[in-house]
Amino acid sequence: MIRISFDRDSAIAVGLMSGTSLDGVDAAVVRIEGGGLSAKAKLLHAYSRPYGDELRERLKDLCVPERSRVDEICGMNALLAEIFAEAAREAVRQAGLSMQDVDFVSSHGQTVWHIPGERDRTGGSDLQSRDPAAVRSTLQIGDLSVLSKRLGVPVVGDFRPGDMAVGGQGAPLAPYGDLILFRDEARGRLLQNIGGIGNCTALPASANPEDVFAFDTGPGNMVIDQAVWLLSGGRMTYDAGGAWGASGTPCESLVDEMLKHPFFRQAPPKSTGREVFGKAYTADFVERARRDFALSDADIVATATAFTARSIAQSYTDFVFPRCRIDEIVVSGGGARNAALMEMLAELLPEQAVCSSNEFGVDDDAKEAVIFALLGNDFLRGVPNHLPSATGASRPTVLGKLALP
Amino acid sequence: MIRISFDRDSAIAVGLMSGTSLDGVDAAVVRIEGGGLSAKAKLLHAYSRPYGDELRERLKDLCVPERSRVDEICGMNALLAEIFAEAAREAVRQAGLSMQDVDFVSSHGQTVWHIPGERDRTGGSDLQSRDPAAVRSTLQIGDLSVLSKRLGVPVVGDFRPGDMAVGGQGAPLAPYGDLILFRDEARGRLLQNIGGIGNCTALPASANPEDVFAFDTGPGNMVIDQAVWLLSGGRMTYDAGGAWGASGTPCESLVDEMLKHPFFRQAPPKSTGREVFGKAYTADFVERARRDFALSDADIVATATAFTARSIAQSYTDFVFPRCRIDEIVVSGGGARNAALMEMLAELLPEQAVCSSNEFGVDDDAKEAVIFALLGNDFLRGVPNHLPSATGASRPTVLGKLALP
Repeated sequence: MIRISFDRDSAIAVGLMSGTSLDGVDAAVVRIEGGGLSAKAKLLHAYSRPYGDELRERLKDLCVPERSRVDEICGMNALLAEIFAEAAREAVRQAGLSMQDVDFVSSHGQTVWHIPGERDRTGGSDLQSRDPAAVRSTLQIGDLSVLSKRLGVPVVGDFRPGDMAVGGQGAPLAPYGDLILFRDEARGRLLQNIGGIGNCTALPASANPEDVFAFDTGPGNMVIDQAVWLLSGGRMTYDAGGAWGASGTPCESLVDEMLKHPFFRQAPPKSTGREVFGKAYTADFVERARRDFALSDADIVATATAFTARSIAQSYTDFVFPRCRIDEIVVSGGGARNAALMEMLAELLPEQAVCSSNEFGVDDDAKEAVIFALLGNDFLRGVPNHLPSATGASRPTVLGKLALP
Repeated sequence: MIRISFDRDSAIAVGLMSGTSLDGVDAAVVRIEGGGLSAKAKLLHAYSRPYGDELRERLKDLCVPERSRVDEICGMNALLAEIFAEAAREAVRQAGLSMQDVDFVSSHGQTVWHIPGERDRTGGSDLQSRDPAAVRSTLQIGDLSVLSKRLGVPVVGDFRPGDMAVGGQGAPLAPYGDLILFRDEARGRLLQNIGGIGNCTALPASANPEDVFAFDTGPGNMVIDQAVWLLSGGRMTYDAGGAWGASGTPCESLVDEMLKHPFFRQAPPKSTGREVFGKAYTADFVERARRDFALSDADIVATATAFTARSIAQSYTDFVFPRCRIDEIVVSGGGARNAALMEMLAELLPEQAVCSSNEFGVDDDAKEAVIFALLGNDFLRGVPNHLPSATGASRPTVLGKLALP
């Protein structure tokens, strides 16, 4: 019988998260008591190391089939591990600790490809003739052995392939951590992340794992950011604090039309991305707003903001509130710092308290890094660390791989 | 304190090896007693699953930077794991066992890129601006989580990056297993593998780990195979049993000239490959043999065979015998089945017994798969599972990663 022996009730872990936005790596130094759904996590320190433009462009190329190369993927797998190691070391130093105090590191890795597709991978004798590009699979880089040898502590990571191997989409994994961090006996909570895309996790009061559900609500900051970039002639990349949007008036009839997009009618589970609400979509929207509605620049930003807010609220009305009572909306991600957006959300959702995840002591940027520390903790304790209700996996299983120092 | 608990003195393991020749995956069902250098391995059953031409061509493309793509690498990482899982399952079935009898699987994975290069990866603040294609690194595919979920047993694998992370070349790893399998108290042994390339591991009598050394001797079957292919107009891919070579007479003066290649004078550690002794080299050799020496086809094959035999023997005279006494030469790989080559070796090495590794109860093809089962066994026991004297690593460390079912 092979199992991992991990005899500490309380552990110090470093969670590492590097998202698809390719903006850098977030490191969270976390004290974790216990494991599984009753684990308690306390964030000791959060640190982010941004990726420079050169590295980001190289990573972007690795994510494009036509521009990617095996030698660069191989080298970047090692190089990113070195960069992650530096970020972990700096986070630990800033927390006033040393690496000797750290029990383990848990790293999500940098996704370079993800095909959650519908095709079955367990087929029979014709495996060898399958087109690899069509095989359900996911690839995260940032080698766990390099990270572990460099830091001198055990490293857990690479969680997604295991979920996919038991029939899941390999995503989303965060709802499992959301359940641990935000589950409440008496209050139903909706965790709304507003990054480029918006996604929500519904945690009914005293939720069991099978009660949790999650889906993409639509664009998060993506349309607002892109509109601001267009309208400012490239000088601004986002609406800081929501100031520009707050100075205009949303055109509700244009928002009404935008909400007719088929994505919003589709029932969960569902996900969307840059290929739907990206550059082309926003350019059309801006042109339309000017031509058919004669909106000013400030009104256009306000309209993009209202579109995001109303798409989120409508998702709840259509797909969440009919299933469970929600008392609080906890917003994380860059959108939580857009005051205009937060105000609109509060107005649209008068029966719920709308607040930022900061109020729960979990810094927006650090939340996912904390969650991946929890996933690593459960790997070491042999506890299944995902929600089949969120990923579509056929059974709960222990995700991850372990490398030793 | 995190460690792996593995309380069995005796384990049943499946070792999986898929080499750079891309001819398929070898699965060895092995009973292992104990761990570390005193482990005893008994091969219960060996099984090979060949790769079909379509799969081999796809894998070849993945190994060429200009033709490789991230989507295909990602998908092949999952697909190969499914193929490895089928091979492991079939090996276990043929051994008369079921997966329930198996304690763990240990997989080398399929190497798609390997840059052991000289450059240091631990550099400081300029990490982000490094060219990933120049970073020391190695990439093996065949996802451990997919393999583990599919087979229902713990899977260890991905051994090379850890050695590289502590300054080694990530290769060769086999000498560690050679030491366990073939070390003798009284007799010095040389293990000669003759695959495409020839490589040897020297095990002095009663060797300690630091006494072991290993290096590439030069071409193995590569020049013979390629000459046979050319001379037969593509109808034959190798000289079966050495029959063609045995029917001719080697031209020793041409061999003398060929042995002037600078590779043979270079002191170990050293390695070579297809880029040195591949198609172009052999085409030149064949043309030269015809034009300047008027050799018949049979004489050309005999000369290629003699070249291989003499390059091996000369490597010993120059670099092994001066360092330690050798009593036996144990030959493995396809070359052990070339009777002409084996006879030449025996003639060139009159003071040593030249034999095939089959005589030690370890089938040629299965040897490396058995060795990777031993590496996995030691990972689980927390025992360093490589030889820094062979890889150049700065210290002994535990190589590998673990995925749970």
